[in-house]
Amino acid sequence: MLHVSERGQLLPPSPYRQLTPYAEAARRRGLVVHPLNIGQPDIETPPQMLAAVQQADIRVLDYGPTAGLDSYRRVLADYYQQQGLAVTADDIIVTTGGSEAIMFALLACLNPDDEFIVPEPFYGPYQGFAIATDTRLVPVSSYLENEFALPPIADFEAKITARTRAILLCNPNNPTGYVYSRTELEQLRDLCLRHNLYLLADEAYREFCYDAPFVSALELPGAEQHVVLLDTISKRYSACGARIGALVTKNQTLREAVFKLAQLRVCPPGLGQLLAQAAAELPTDYFAHTQAEYQARRDLMVARLQAMPGVQCPRPGGAFYVLCQLPVDDAARFARWLLEEFELRGETLLVSPAAGFYATAELGRQQLRLAYVVHQDIINRSMDCLAAALKQYPGRQE
Amino acid sequence: MLHVSERGQLLPPSPYRQLTPYAEAARRRGLVVHPLNIGQPDIETPPQMLAAVQQADIRVLDYGPTAGLDSYRRVLADYYQQQGLAVTADDIIVTTGGSEAIMFALLACLNPDDEFIVPEPFYGPYQGFAIATDTRLVPVSSYLENEFALPPIADFEAKITARTRAILLCNPNNPTGYVYSRTELEQLRDLCLRHNLYLLADEAYREFCYDAPFVSALELPGAEQHVVLLDTISKRYSACGARIGALVTKNQTLREAVFKLAQLRVCPPGLGQLLAQAAAELPTDYFAHTQAEYQARRDLMVARLQAMPGVQCPRPGGAFYVLCQLPVDDAARFARWLLEEFELRGETLLVSPAAGFYATAELGRQQLRLAYVVHQDIINRSMDCLAAALKQYPGRQE
Repeated sequence: MLHVSERGQLLPPSPYRQLTPYAEAARRRGLVVHPLNIGQPDIETPPQMLAAVQQADIRVLDYGPTAGLDSYRRVLADYYQQQGLAVTADDIIVTTGGSEAIMFALLACLNPDDEFIVPEPFYGPYQGFAIATDTRLVPVSSYLENEFALPPIADFEAKITARTRAILLCNPNNPTGYVYSRTELEQLRDLCLRHNLYLLADEAYREFCYDAPFVSALELPGAEQHVVLLDTISKRYSACGARIGALVTKNQTLREAVFKLAQLRVCPPGLGQLLAQAAAELPTDYFAHTQAEYQARRDLMVARLQAMPGVQCPRPGGAFYVLCQLPVDDAARFARWLLEEFELRGETLLVSPAAGFYATAELGRQQLRLAYVVHQDIINRSMDCLAAALKQYPGRQE
Repeated sequence: MLHVSERGQLLPPSPYRQLTPYAEAARRRGLVVHPLNIGQPDIETPPQMLAAVQQADIRVLDYGPTAGLDSYRRVLADYYQQQGLAVTADDIIVTTGGSEAIMFALLACLNPDDEFIVPEPFYGPYQGFAIATDTRLVPVSSYLENEFALPPIADFEAKITARTRAILLCNPNNPTGYVYSRTELEQLRDLCLRHNLYLLADEAYREFCYDAPFVSALELPGAEQHVVLLDTISKRYSACGARIGALVTKNQTLREAVFKLAQLRVCPPGLGQLLAQAAAELPTDYFAHTQAEYQARRDLMVARLQAMPGVQCPRPGGAFYVLCQLPVDDAARFARWLLEEFELRGETLLVSPAAGFYATAELGRQQLRLAYVVHQDIINRSMDCLAAALKQYPGRQE
């Protein structure tokens, strides 16, 4: 009998998509199911960027350079420089989405059985990336009561072993929306310098900060050799399907190892790079517009959630998620009940139960992640559903 | 001091690109350098396929399904069915290039330290994929004297250990151009059934067979649960930059594991899939045209090589490479000499020394791989260069 590998067996299914079959069944019954479960922006991909692909004169869609098109790397370096980051084109390896940047960073920084520490709740696939790369994700818990702020450095230190090689931080955070302060980042930097760790900074949501300026890990003085930026255009330009990301580091030795990994897949997607490169043509106020729209959505969703009896919802400073605590026995059971047993005027909700974002058992069991990537009218209708559902749900707990 | 991982250190640089700096220097000196080193087809990407992307009505370039667009999977299943293969859309997971299919197959079929057996010479990056996935590539030698035919099954059996999980076969072969016969494939199938191994079939060049019909591993009766097809549109449609491949298997358990790996990167490139899907609109004689062109190039290159004193060159049945033996001390030294010290009427050659395609030390040291992905006029000029160079090269050996 043929066997699937242990990693193939151990990999968890996506925490975002487990409820999809129930949502499809609800839609077949005629319900409108509002999708708040995944971070797929509804904001249109900038037409200038699509036009750059659609008007390109291509005779042979050939392999490009392994590290990405030189022209695109220069555009991307300009983008970082406009943010005050001392990044040059040479520091950049263009990747196939942010996911490939995560994979490359883990493969190049960690040996099998090495450990990396991540504040939990965390982006669910990190656990899968650890399994695929044969490395160990070690969680340090952050708590809703504390708005999911950075856990005390002592909690990180308590988890450090001889096998610890890196801290992985998603900032702004998915799933919590928390934006780490300069002070918190400096504490982490000092920890990494003290224990000789890489600081893997997943900044997929770097352009979505609503209350305070974003601080990138690349800004931290003294950490240049430690910081590995994991980036993507997916959220920044509503271009998830382009599969264009980047790994950025001033650490040349590490970059050379990543380059050899990148050679295995020859080059990142060519058409997506043409699209990404045209970001240079966007008006300078492009992000101001998208930020204003997401901020209004956040304010609306948080206000609605905070008005529901028994719901606890910190006000996230960034990304486009809220992680809230509900007065229910089990958020996964509640999420399924929403799709199977509930409706309000022919509508219901698809949400992500938060347990899939935690490595520690039992944490987050009453929590949901909601993505505000839909129009404000849909947010209102969704919150109407949620408020009504929380009154009717038989597993309600105070 | 921060360290790069062991896999990061062990990864070999690409055997295709090591001479690139010397080629660039030669070009800066004003030489025309004919690129016969990599398999980048010069044949144009079908305009119908590019038009499908360029005329698509896209508002949000969003995440697609993890296994690929349903519409594209159906088109791809139709393609296989036209070849007589019983493939349905459900059997297909669309990948980001053939490279991702290789990575997924190794991760899903093999545990760390497990082994897979590959006839050598082999596609150079296989060794890197083994390192990245912490698996072991075990070579079984094939020989130029035997036209690089499948090594005797006894040679495979001699390499099988308790850790062997798969045979990886590239058919038509890169770098040798050898096309495996039905009898050879059946022998391999029997071996896989007997020893409970996966048969990973890299058929990137499946449409480039010149002397006999191609036999796919998917045609082998009784091996349905064992065969994993690794495919790509890169060569088939001159669309290397699209980064669209596929992993195809009837083994549902394995496919579910691959699907979980695929969920980590959410989806394959969206624009590339639109392009790939439009292959359905190509005229039915599309491959006849491209095959005729490549076959004429092969015939020309092989005839020219065989006419050079001391050169041994089997006549490859497929792909677009020849692997030939030269009367030189060291093919790598010769290749560098071509770029640094040789010219004929202002022209020279960029080639791939074959040592990078072997795992066994010393094998292939006098061999070169030449890709016939350039116009016949360039092939003639390149062969003029090679013939002259072999006369002048100080390290010539009879």
